[in-house]
Amino acid sequence: MNKYFAEFFGTFWLVLGGCGSAVLAAAFPEVGIGLVGVSIAFGLSVLTMAYAIGHISGAHLNPAVTVGLYVGGRMDKKDVLPYIIAQCIGAIAAAAVLFVIATGNGSEIGSFAANGYGEHSPGGYSMTAAIVSEFVMTMIFLIIIMGATDDAAPKGFGGIAIGLTLTLIHLISIPVTNTSVNPARSLSQAVFVGDWALAQLWLFILIPIAGAAVGALIYKAIKS
Amino acid sequence: MNKYFAEFFGTFWLVLGGCGSAVLAAAFPEVGIGLVGVSIAFGLSVLTMAYAIGHISGAHLNPAVTVGLYVGGRMDKKDVLPYIIAQCIGAIAAAAVLFVIATGNGSEIGSFAANGYGEHSPGGYSMTAAIVSEFVMTMIFLIIIMGATDDAAPKGFGGIAIGLTLTLIHLISIPVTNTSVNPARSLSQAVFVGDWALAQLWLFILIPIAGAAVGALIYKAIKS
Amino acid sequence: MNKYFAEFFGTFWLVLGGCGSAVLAAAFPEVGIGLVGVSIAFGLSVLTMAYAIGHISGAHLNPAVTVGLYVGGRMDKKDVLPYIIAQCIGAIAAAAVLFVIATGNGSEIGSFAANGYGEHSPGGYSMTAAIVSEFVMTMIFLIIIMGATDDAAPKGFGGIAIGLTLTLIHLISIPVTNTSVNPARSLSQAVFVGDWALAQLWLFILIPIAGAAVGALIYKAIKS
Amino acid sequence: MNKYFAEFFGTFWLVLGGCGSAVLAAAFPEVGIGLVGVSIAFGLSVLTMAYAIGHISGAHLNPAVTVGLYVGGRMDKKDVLPYIIAQCIGAIAAAAVLFVIATGNGSEIGSFAANGYGEHSPGGYSMTAAIVSEFVMTMIFLIIIMGATDDAAPKGFGGIAIGLTLTLIHLISIPVTNTSVNPARSLSQAVFVGDWALAQLWLFILIPIAGAAVGALIYKAIKS
Repeated sequence: MNKYFAEFFGTFWLVLGGCGSAVLAAAFPEVGIGLVGVSIAFGLSVLTMAYAIGHISGAHLNPAVTVGLYVGGRMDKKDVLPYIIAQCIGAIAAAAVLFVIATGNGSEIGSFAANGYGEHSPGGYSMTAAIVSEFVMTMIFLIIIMGATDDAAPKGFGGIAIGLTLTLIHLISIPVTNTSVNPARSLSQAVFVGDWALAQLWLFILIPIAGAAVGALIYKAIKS
Repeated sequence: MNKYFAEFFGTFWLVLGGCGSAVLAAAFPEVGIGLVGVSIAFGLSVLTMAYAIGHISGAHLNPAVTVGLYVGGRMDKKDVLPYIIAQCIGAIAAAAVLFVIATGNGSEIGSFAANGYGEHSPGGYSMTAAIVSEFVMTMIFLIIIMGATDDAAPKGFGGIAIGLTLTLIHLISIPVTNTSVNPARSLSQAVFVGDWALAQLWLFILIPIAGAAVGALIYKAIKS
Repeated sequence: MNKYFAEFFGTFWLVLGGCGSAVLAAAFPEVGIGLVGVSIAFGLSVLTMAYAIGHISGAHLNPAVTVGLYVGGRMDKKDVLPYIIAQCIGAIAAAAVLFVIATGNGSEIGSFAANGYGEHSPGGYSMTAAIVSEFVMTMIFLIIIMGATDDAAPKGFGGIAIGLTLTLIHLISIPVTNTSVNPARSLSQAVFVGDWALAQLWLFILIPIAGAAVGALIYKAIKS
Repeated sequence: MNKYFAEFFGTFWLVLGGCGSAVLAAAFPEVGIGLVGVSIAFGLSVLTMAYAIGHISGAHLNPAVTVGLYVGGRMDKKDVLPYIIAQCIGAIAAAAVLFVIATGNGSEIGSFAANGYGEHSPGGYSMTAAIVSEFVMTMIFLIIIMGATDDAAPKGFGGIAIGLTLTLIHLISIPVTNTSVNPARSLSQAVFVGDWALAQLWLFILIPIAGAAVGALIYKAIKS
């Protein structure tokens, strides 16, 4: 059970840190952290949890990563579903905490940090652009996760490489979809935003999982 | 005694670096470092001291961390009070140096880098939002500190993970309370600002310590 | 063959990450990542791939690096050409993906993230300034690559040092040439922009390779 | 002789990277890197060279560091003067390269990246504020350098801690003096700016050296 609790708190931190920085600090007047701050925040949530709970659960914090590592032969089938459940509950719990804080100055949550495409893409990007972006980003994410945790890679550096990959993914793709690559993160925001965010949620569940599976297979092929 | 001096200089650096960057550079015209720069500064003060004095005192630099690690069974009871005293004196000494520098161009210190809620929250967040934010941030901080310094975690990376956690905490929560999670840091600023900053100081002493204690217990429970 | 595929995916990531962040996010209204975000993106593409595929191909991701390491006696002659081919194909593939995403909101690609000098330099810098900048940047890049992967250097840290060198190179020189130091990166953008970008491409092939070769020889001389 | 060449190239990189990013990119229209980018640049110049040439010369790149380490008992007396000479020549060589690039779009160099106080302080800070700032920053710098390279500190992480300390120093103190803590860096800019920059140079030679010596002695005292 310990590793499921670890995934709960880890994903809680990913959503509170990544989405929280976006909602509370990105556009703060004059000194806001901007997309660069949000990108750093998402990455650091994974980097920090990798060292804190990596030795307990592996610190996936993301259903797409869990599925990808299963496809890549790195994880036990029986843990896949419990991991995903723990991640989703942790993500929603963080969104609830963020809701309490964010509305604490009388603000509405608006679109929170929900993911979207078409008219709900931050930069107005089409569904096709969103699919390509989410697929390729998650695919590369898994190549790097598989590679940086390979026995042949330098020991201990995996958390840095994997966390900063998530930073880089956000530096590129926030304008396209607000960046998901993580179904639990997308779900947690859509639950509070409802409406269009729930209607577009399918893309941010299916595409990251598909991209992750393909990325894991690519790494296996390169390494074999 | 050596470790108390180490905590003195370490907390001196945390306040000079974190609060100093906020006061001197955050809103510098055109090229100011913004909240992202301040967040990096706080994190780097801990990261750098972790490698410089971690082998001497453990580099807590924060009474909440010291209490949390005591609750978590990681530190000797007899060191708790001396550590906290050394941290508070170091923090106040840094605030004094910062006062001398910051007023050296004829500026008033204004609200310095004091922490506040309600009308003294940077973003106008309520006391409830402040309590939730400070509690959860410090709770996660201790989970990560306990985890990243666990014998099972990769050796040597703790300073990176813990320092960058403080960066992430600031990326999220500066708009809410100006971010404390550290009673010594809050005290040092309130001493110079007086008035409302002293009146609100209780929150930034009690809540971080409570959050830290709960975080340490959560980690122990996850790990057991 | 595996290492050629690794170079393909690695250079794909460098161009998608570095050029992608520049095209999609640098000037995003109000919260754009700016040149600091683009600089971080380029560096992280190398840092992350260094840990993911460094143990497979060495993670050059750059024909100038490959030539430099050959001149420096660190790589087998028979791999030089296949590496360069894999890098160029990977870079162009990434540019194609970026083209699909970037035009997905109806935008033109404009000058994409192409490199240029004179009237096509972001800051209007002359061809001479461009040559000096690209030469010196790539020269130092190779000194650091050779040094940080030297047997006498701390093990495992090379990826951090080398990736962040690319970040620093961009922090300095984006205004001058949009920063190349990598012929494959320049080629990939010029192919889509055509016209002046192809006409100026010679500089971004010849100068980085020359600088890299000189840098490798300097390191050998310092170390001997 | 090899280590003197290493110090030459290392200090060359520090000035080209730190001062170069300040002169070329800090205030670039709309997407400039600001003081946060310049702070990152200075830090990364040291971080990257620490891994590239640390095993050759120790990567001081700074006469104040060299003097401080001598006072701290970490370096041979006979190397002090040659190190300082190599650092100063490397710094001036970098300033010359930067001059060629920076004037390559027809710009004047203005105040380049020179250090100053009073009316030449970026934020108009007095000489007293400048002395306090430079002294304390260099003092802490040496405490961290001595600590992070102590035999008891985690192996290999020193370059990260020391480089990022320089980043933090800049995040705090650029508004005060444009941040020196390094006589070679100050000299290199003053040579090109002349006039007031040369007249104020004494402060940026004497104070960093004094602060470094005191910092080294403090660390020795804490550790003993």
